This record gives sequence, C-alpha cells and structure tokens, in this order.
Amino acid sequence: MLKIYRLDDADIARILEGAQSKAKEMGVAMCIAITDESCNLLAFMRMEGGKIPSITIAIDKSYTAAGTRKATHDLAEASLPGNPVFGLTSTVGGRIIVIAGGLPVVVAGKVIGAIGVSSGTPAQDLLVAEAGMVAFEKG
Amino acid sequence: MLKIYRLDDADIARILEGAQSKAKEMGVAMCIAITDESCNLLAFMRMEGGKIPSITIAIDKSYTAAGTRKATHDLAEASLPGNPVFGLTSTVGGRIIVIAGGLPVVVAGKVIGAIGVSSGTPAQDLLVAEAGMVAFEKG
Amino acid sequence: MLKIYRLDDADIARILEGAQSKAKEMGVAMCIAITDESCNLLAFMRMEGGKIPSITIAIDKSYTAAGTRKATHDLAEASLPGNPVFGLTSTVGGRIIVIAGGLPVVVAGKVIGAIGVSSGTPAQDLLVAEAGMVAFEKG
Amino acid sequence: MLKIYRLDDADIARILEGAQSKAKEMGVAMCIAITDESCNLLAFMRMEGGKIPSITIAIDKSYTAAGTRKATHDLAEASLPGNPVFGLTSTVGGRIIVIAGGLPVVVAGKVIGAIGVSSGTPAQDLLVAEAGMVAFEKG
Repeated sequence: MLKIYRLDDADIARILEGAQSKAKEMGVAMCIAITDESCNLLAFMRMEGGKIPSITIAIDKSYTAAGTRKATHDLAEASLPGNPVFGLTSTVGGRIIVIAGGLPVVVAGKVIGAIGVSSGTPAQDLLVAEAGMVAFEKG
Repeated sequence: MLKIYRLDDADIARILEGAQSKAKEMGVAMCIAITDESCNLLAFMRMEGGKIPSITIAIDKSYTAAGTRKATHDLAEASLPGNPVFGLTSTVGGRIIVIAGGLPVVVAGKVIGAIGVSSGTPAQDLLVAEAGMVAFEKG
Repeated sequence: MLKIYRLDDADIARILEGAQSKAKEMGVAMCIAITDESCNLLAFMRMEGGKIPSITIAIDKSYTAAGTRKATHDLAEASLPGNPVFGLTSTVGGRIIVIAGGLPVVVAGKVIGAIGVSSGTPAQDLLVAEAGMVAFEKG
Repeated sequence: MLKIYRLDDADIARILEGAQSKAKEMGVAMCIAITDESCNLLAFMRMEGGKIPSITIAIDKSYTAAGTRKATHDLAEASLPGNPVFGLTSTVGGRIIVIAGGLPVVVAGKVIGAIGVSSGTPAQDLLVAEAGMVAFEKG
C-alpha cells in the first residue's frame, strides 16, 4: 500500500483566503479553484464578477498544475509550434492549460494539490495564485 | 434591459457555512455546490472524505435546481418510465439529476441560485441542502 | 495535510493476476480495470476476445466502486425507477455503473482502490472481480 | 472476408515488460498504454508516481500511433501552423497527439497495434516506447 499526502480542510481554507484577499486588494474578481494531488476538485470560488469561462479555466489550471507538477506558465514555451510538446494544450479534452495562474502545492518535494486562478490577466491570475501559496506556507 | 437578481458573496458564504455545519453535525463528509440563477458555478467545497463522483453530482444537482427552478427530487416522479418527462435524466449530457439534494434559492418568487449536495444518502444530502437554505434565510 | 492510502504496484499485479487466472479458468475473456482511491486508472487488461464496450465499462465499474465505496451491484436496487437514486446511472457522463463486476478494495475501513470487470455475464464479471480481491488479501 | 493481425496476450506482456524495465532503469514512473490495430485499448499500466493527465495522454498516443500508422512525433511537423495538417491536434476530441512517445507496432508492413508512453519528457517517453518495441521484436 502506498501512503499519499493531500491538502486538508485547513490548508484549503488558508489558500482560498489568501488568494481572495489578494484579489480584493487588486480589485479583480477572480475564479479560484483548488485541486488535490489526484487532480480532483476540492474547492472553488467565483467572486462577484468572475468570468463564466474562467470557471472551467481556473479548475483546469489547477488540474494541470497538480497533474504536471509544474506551474502552468512553465509549460508554455515547450508547447509552442515546433517545440517538444506542441499540441499539449488540446490533450485530455483540452484541459491542459499553459497560461499563467496555476501552481502546484509542493511539500517536501511532493505535490499535494494545486491552485488555479482565472478572470484577470495571466499576470494578475498568477499574483493571486502566489498569494494563495504564501498563505499556505504561513500555515 | 432586464434586471437580474443573483446570490452575492455574503449569501454564498452563509449557505456554505450552514450546509457544512449541518454535515459536520451529522458526521457526513459532503460535496456542496452553489450555482447562480444562470446555472453557472459560484462555489464548491469537498469536505475531507467527500466522494469523487459526488463532485460532479453536487455541481449537477445545483445546476438542475437552478435550471428547472425545482427541488431535484420533485423531478423524480415525472421522470419515471411512462411519465411525461421520462428520459430527462439523460438530457444535457446527463447533467439533470432527479435525486434529492438540490434546492433552488427563491426570493419573491424568483430563483436567484441553487445549492446541490452529494456524498451521503439522498435524505442526508437533502438535510444538508435545507440547512444551507435556512442559513440563507436567516441572513 | 491528509494522509491517504492507495494500492501499490505489488497490489495491482496481485489483483490483476488473481482476476485473470479466474477468467482463464472460467474460459471467459475479460476486460479488467484497477483504479486508485481517487478513481483514477492504475491498470487495465483486455484479454484476447474481451469486448470493446467492456473497455469503458470495466474502467467505469472500477471508477464507480472506488467513488461510491460500494460494490457496483449494491447500487442497482436503489437506482430502480421510483427508488431514491433513480437516474444515478446517467450521472457523471454515464460513468456510474450499477451492474455487477465492480468492487472496492477496503483496508481497515478505508477504500484504497477498486477493480472493475466486464465482458461476461454480470455474475461472471463479479466472480472474476472477487478472485482479484482474494488474491489481494492473500498478499 | 478480411483476415486481421493483432497483438496477442504474449506480445502485450512482452511490450509492457520491456517498457516498464526501461522506465525503472531510467528512474521515471510512466503511464504505458497498448492499443490494438483498431485503436482500442488492450492494456494500460500507471507506475507508482505516473501522472494523472498522462493516463489519457498515454492512451491517446497509442490511439494516434495505431490510427495514423506513424510514430506520434512524425506528425508534429505537418501539424505546425501553415503546414498541411495544421489543426490535427484538436481533431477526434483532441485525441490525436503529436508529441513523442507513441509508436505503431508493424509486422510485414502491417500495423498490428501501438504503444503510447507519457509522464516523462517527450524524449524519455520515446525511449521507453522504443524499449517496448525492442522487447516485442525479440519475442
């Protein structure tokens, strides 16, 4: 039997709170998703004014970060036409997102979940995701 | 131009809190979803131990309740073989759920959102959804 | 952080071997799927002559057993027209299977994975799934 | 009537074993899929630590290699913007993968199945797929 580590309820609350605070401070209504180490949704919040397509994009950014164990934007260059994973963005039913805003939660070298943020610019999405990670680490 | 009414952030927090408190009191880890009047996801929470298929089922119960403007279990009888909406459960890619646990949020006769709960028995799911509604009305 | 238990490679090999041996003994070519505690596929084998729709059905039986934490056939009665979870079979994109042949792997009260078998009669599928569980427990 | 040639159980075991041995030697946990000449799944194995999106990607690489009768990476250049099959990667629901790691199994000029590997870099995935082919040919 394997032993696996996963975000718990307190972790989730902390990440959501940290991300939402940052989004409010920035004045951008965000969709924020948190996924476990197996890429399954744990929590989601669409702030007042968050965009409808961003519901799916935030969820899929967290799916991608948990599944690839990378920040979503770190997949972007390799996915360009002519590069080794060109076409990655249409795999898994289009769920692999290479736009900034998805970050894995890593503890002792193991991915235990991920956050995905969408509705702002990619740079704004990433700032909010990072604020979630900072809140997690303060835990 | 139409004016639409919709759950706001404070409503969502209150419904989630009411539903989760009830679930904890009952000792059942639930998936809880809240959808707006347009059937789009506003919030989701999978408590520790909530079931994986219930992620989708909770979201789809709230989709169904917002979309049909009925409690999900109120659709069950009409969906039986031989009855007028037999086959309803496989429409919209299978998103229409007629199992208890989805309730519309109604204010002055207008549906402004919905809650969907899954992971327990249908009776348990409904109790938790009702607790969310009670918390909303206390607002 | 939560600690989760999951089938390991040795567990998987033992379950597959036990199930396949039984299927050969019975003279029925089976599709056999093994899923982890999060409903994600770990292993799949279609024996020579296994049926094409059974690829998906075996995978979805293991998904259902892991996700509902029940034998798939234990969901059948409650799913009948007029019963509490009527319509369950079309939820989650039709992935919830209530036909015999899916069993959760339970250790100390926790589901750590599941097996799903398809291609024979439901009774044959269940016998093969049970043989997989016996092999696991002998481990 | 046509006579079709297809991988048999012994072929599958040999390919899986060869691929897994190479993956272990390289220290990379892989998802490995084997598909028949009709693009239908024969076998799948996710080694401990294989990635969740790679379940689908490995299966789809073997689907692509069996279906196009080419190594997946041989489709990459023609799929580039401006080239003749630009857009190929989003066809068939996104199942056509042009990333390295999918190889057809060819005997006497006929494709009798395919292997797909995912979880490492494309170069690592290809090495593991090739090791599967070497094991097949040694048969």
